[in-house]
Amino acid sequence: MSKEQQSKEQQSKEQQKKAPQSAITPTRADDYPEWYQQVIKAADLAENSPTRGCMVIKPWGYALWENIQQVLDRKFKETGHVNAYFPLLIPISFFEKEAEHIEGFAKECAVVTHHRLEPGPNGTLVPAGELDEPYIIRPTSETIIGASYAKWVQSYRDLPILINQWANVMRWEMRTRMFLRTAEFLWQEGHTAHATAQEAVEETMQMLDVYEWFAHEWMAMPVIKGEKTPGEKFPGAVNTYTIEAMMQDGKALQAGTSHFLGQTFAKSSGIKFQSQSGQEEFAWTTSWGVSTRLIGGLIMTHSDDDGLICPPRLAPKHVVLIPIYRNDEEKTQILEYCHKVKKELEGVTYMGGAIRVELDARDIRGGEKTWQHIKKGTPIRAEVGPRDMQADSLFVARRDMGVKEKKGISRTEFVATIGQTLDDMHKHLFDRALAHREANTRTLTDYNEFVSWFTPKNEDKPEIHGGFALAYWSPDASAAKEINDKLASLKVTARCIPLNDKAPVGKCLFTGRETTTRVIFAKNY
Amino acid sequence: MSKEQQSKEQQSKEQQKKAPQSAITPTRADDYPEWYQQVIKAADLAENSPTRGCMVIKPWGYALWENIQQVLDRKFKETGHVNAYFPLLIPISFFEKEAEHIEGFAKECAVVTHHRLEPGPNGTLVPAGELDEPYIIRPTSETIIGASYAKWVQSYRDLPILINQWANVMRWEMRTRMFLRTAEFLWQEGHTAHATAQEAVEETMQMLDVYEWFAHEWMAMPVIKGEKTPGEKFPGAVNTYTIEAMMQDGKALQAGTSHFLGQTFAKSSGIKFQSQSGQEEFAWTTSWGVSTRLIGGLIMTHSDDDGLICPPRLAPKHVVLIPIYRNDEEKTQILEYCHKVKKELEGVTYMGGAIRVELDARDIRGGEKTWQHIKKGTPIRAEVGPRDMQADSLFVARRDMGVKEKKGISRTEFVATIGQTLDDMHKHLFDRALAHREANTRTLTDYNEFVSWFTPKNEDKPEIHGGFALAYWSPDASAAKEINDKLASLKVTARCIPLNDKAPVGKCLFTGRETTTRVIFAKNY
Repeated sequence: MSKEQQSKEQQSKEQQKKAPQSAITPTRADDYPEWYQQVIKAADLAENSPTRGCMVIKPWGYALWENIQQVLDRKFKETGHVNAYFPLLIPISFFEKEAEHIEGFAKECAVVTHHRLEPGPNGTLVPAGELDEPYIIRPTSETIIGASYAKWVQSYRDLPILINQWANVMRWEMRTRMFLRTAEFLWQEGHTAHATAQEAVEETMQMLDVYEWFAHEWMAMPVIKGEKTPGEKFPGAVNTYTIEAMMQDGKALQAGTSHFLGQTFAKSSGIKFQSQSGQEEFAWTTSWGVSTRLIGGLIMTHSDDDGLICPPRLAPKHVVLIPIYRNDEEKTQILEYCHKVKKELEGVTYMGGAIRVELDARDIRGGEKTWQHIKKGTPIRAEVGPRDMQADSLFVARRDMGVKEKKGISRTEFVATIGQTLDDMHKHLFDRALAHREANTRTLTDYNEFVSWFTPKNEDKPEIHGGFALAYWSPDASAAKEINDKLASLKVTARCIPLNDKAPVGKCLFTGRETTTRVIFAKNY
Repeated sequence: MSKEQQSKEQQSKEQQKKAPQSAITPTRADDYPEWYQQVIKAADLAENSPTRGCMVIKPWGYALWENIQQVLDRKFKETGHVNAYFPLLIPISFFEKEAEHIEGFAKECAVVTHHRLEPGPNGTLVPAGELDEPYIIRPTSETIIGASYAKWVQSYRDLPILINQWANVMRWEMRTRMFLRTAEFLWQEGHTAHATAQEAVEETMQMLDVYEWFAHEWMAMPVIKGEKTPGEKFPGAVNTYTIEAMMQDGKALQAGTSHFLGQTFAKSSGIKFQSQSGQEEFAWTTSWGVSTRLIGGLIMTHSDDDGLICPPRLAPKHVVLIPIYRNDEEKTQILEYCHKVKKELEGVTYMGGAIRVELDARDIRGGEKTWQHIKKGTPIRAEVGPRDMQADSLFVARRDMGVKEKKGISRTEFVATIGQTLDDMHKHLFDRALAHREANTRTLTDYNEFVSWFTPKNEDKPEIHGGFALAYWSPDASAAKEINDKLASLKVTARCIPLNDKAPVGKCLFTGRETTTRVIFAKNY
């Protein structure tokens, strides 16, 4: 080692001594919202862009999205759907057709009004070529897709239409937060049309189940399936169903929604068909979607004060191999060994694919390298030094365990058990998240308890409060405004009416009316 | 068969007698541009949308795009690239930085000027919330991606950056044609930054080779690799390389481009790094892309007067199984047999994936069903009737052969040779397209011959002309305008200077100057 290297090594050791106990500053306990931003930065997932409210999704973050896409796309196709693509721009007049829909989206639309630029003063460019009819950038595509379906559907034989679209959409949000709420985001939007209400409802529920399956089996994120209350449903929907997850700070994240749209959009778009009995009828439609917001949910469900923890089944790389050597001769031997292990691992089938392995042979300090992978959340780190190689073994750490918990394991066992190890980690993350949600959920029957549950104990940390509250709910028209005001003052919303809740009769927390309907209330992202 | 069915069958036979010889009207010979539109319609690939110049890509067309994406994405990753995502909207000021770039795109930009809608007169909605700085919808992303790279790159250690983006882009074209030129289109854009010019040039050429490989090995579309003349290069590029294909009407299609951008965008975006020797230098960048235009190329290279011919390796389905039966008993048996064949075929590995099989069990007339698959271009149609099943064989037709050329083939042989059959078809399509290009390319040394080559013989069919012309080319500044005017009057453009042309010295067709540079001239899409 050169003098310069020695001196750097020394410096870095001193820095480590002075450094805080965790890789992320601030910690979750200190400042949860800022911790979230810092995890995104430390894991190199995304960054803010010069375009207002829009983010740049960096390669590690985008690789998570690619894995999400791949798994969901396969499932959508297995459940009979095909993909298609509809225009980004929607004529304003399409939007004018559906009043509730306007109400929901008009305040946050990016509007295209011109189709070229001309030289302006001082070398600037100014918009020119004003359009006769402006367009909005799709905030969602019910109206433009409905226009196509109206052309495609004539007879009951043309139904059902089962189409999904992977696309970018735009909602001009005032307050944005990376992955959770950005002006532009990536998503998929399923749009189906059916001959009967029952078929459309079944489709709606099927896709809600797909979302639950994805959250549980791939993200290791427990979710509650439920129906939105009328005040929270999608603009234009008859029923909106949701999966809601609890983040580590006790707030709720709406992670995916599936809407039964009844005949609302069929009527505004003119999707009509001749039924088997010869009657002209309007179709019944659904729509359902998840977005890059899932990545925000994944971060806030699992990560810790050292950075991201990727749920293993979606991790861009399952395993990182870190060679450790002191000289060129060792380097050659150890790299060769690592290549062999990599190839063996890549031969293992896992969750319908192969084990994804990174061999990080960069010439940077081992400690720095290891910390980069900790912050990026790679599930398994396996170090190989000369002695490990001699023993034909690796020194392995799991990202869901403490940073210093490492153990030697023979190469053959490591390769043979890699799938099981990842499954164990998946289960551990899921169970931990579920335990956290259960520990932070209360069934409340008293309004004062409800207020107290949602009131921060410490004014300096307004984000720390109870969590979820399950309470009876039976509003009447006269009480609706009062209830809304009460919830707004607590910054709490009705998240959903859990499906299959089967509660005995109880009294509404707000009106005292008897009901069997209960709602999960929470602060939310 | 019921009386009604018999009568329908009879009607349909009569219609067939009266019907034209081909499934597509008009034929290629009658009206090539209109034939193109009709193939898209008959194959159910896409349709025009209510949004000016934008198309709806229907499931069969989108499945082609998905296959294109999958193959290219795998290749990009094999060549060291990763995916990322950058904003759809670009601040106008970013565009103002690069003069040539403005020149190239300012006339066709969709401009976002407002961020909400408000109620206007008579139930209409009008744009509101004017933006301080308007945005344009990306026509290409060099400027916005450059802004990120400027932040990411500090030292030579941060280079190279090898990123690709799959995205939608928008160019407000005045005359649009589905897949070939639409206001919005889907594409991939690679953007790389390097420490040296040489590395960037190597990357540029590598990606050109990838595009050639894709055109030849997957699309069965022969292309000529070449360099664009200065007048035809990408706005802001130092060199633009292209793959050019000849369509069946002799016109050229630019199917993909790879640009060596020198330091142009690094300078306007500020992508600077400290070199190994401690100097501050600007990075060298490249960009390269192909788009949904490839689907237009694929249609116009292979299809015939009966509709689309999918190049087999990209076909959404390689094989369609068509059961033929007269009663329910037969139906049950034949469907069971078809399911078995389907499963066997799906077990066959082909081009890194599995054989994709559709079992078309819809209850519609066999003839109608067969013609649908002919028009959609499924490579292999295999009919199974009671006698075929008895003989454990199928009645098989290849889409690149005549509609009536079918032959019986045993099930075991069919399954065992399916990969070879598809490869044969691929080779047949490629060879046919190459022979067509060669037959319609002339090396010309006389300007009058050149004029005659590009002058339509029949004024009613202005699209029918010679094809490609290869000619010596050495313009000087004084002759540039005259040459351009001559070419414009013939509606001909310089397509590219073919790579590795190695011609002896000859005289420029326009200036008479001696040169070894030759250019391919053609009318183009």
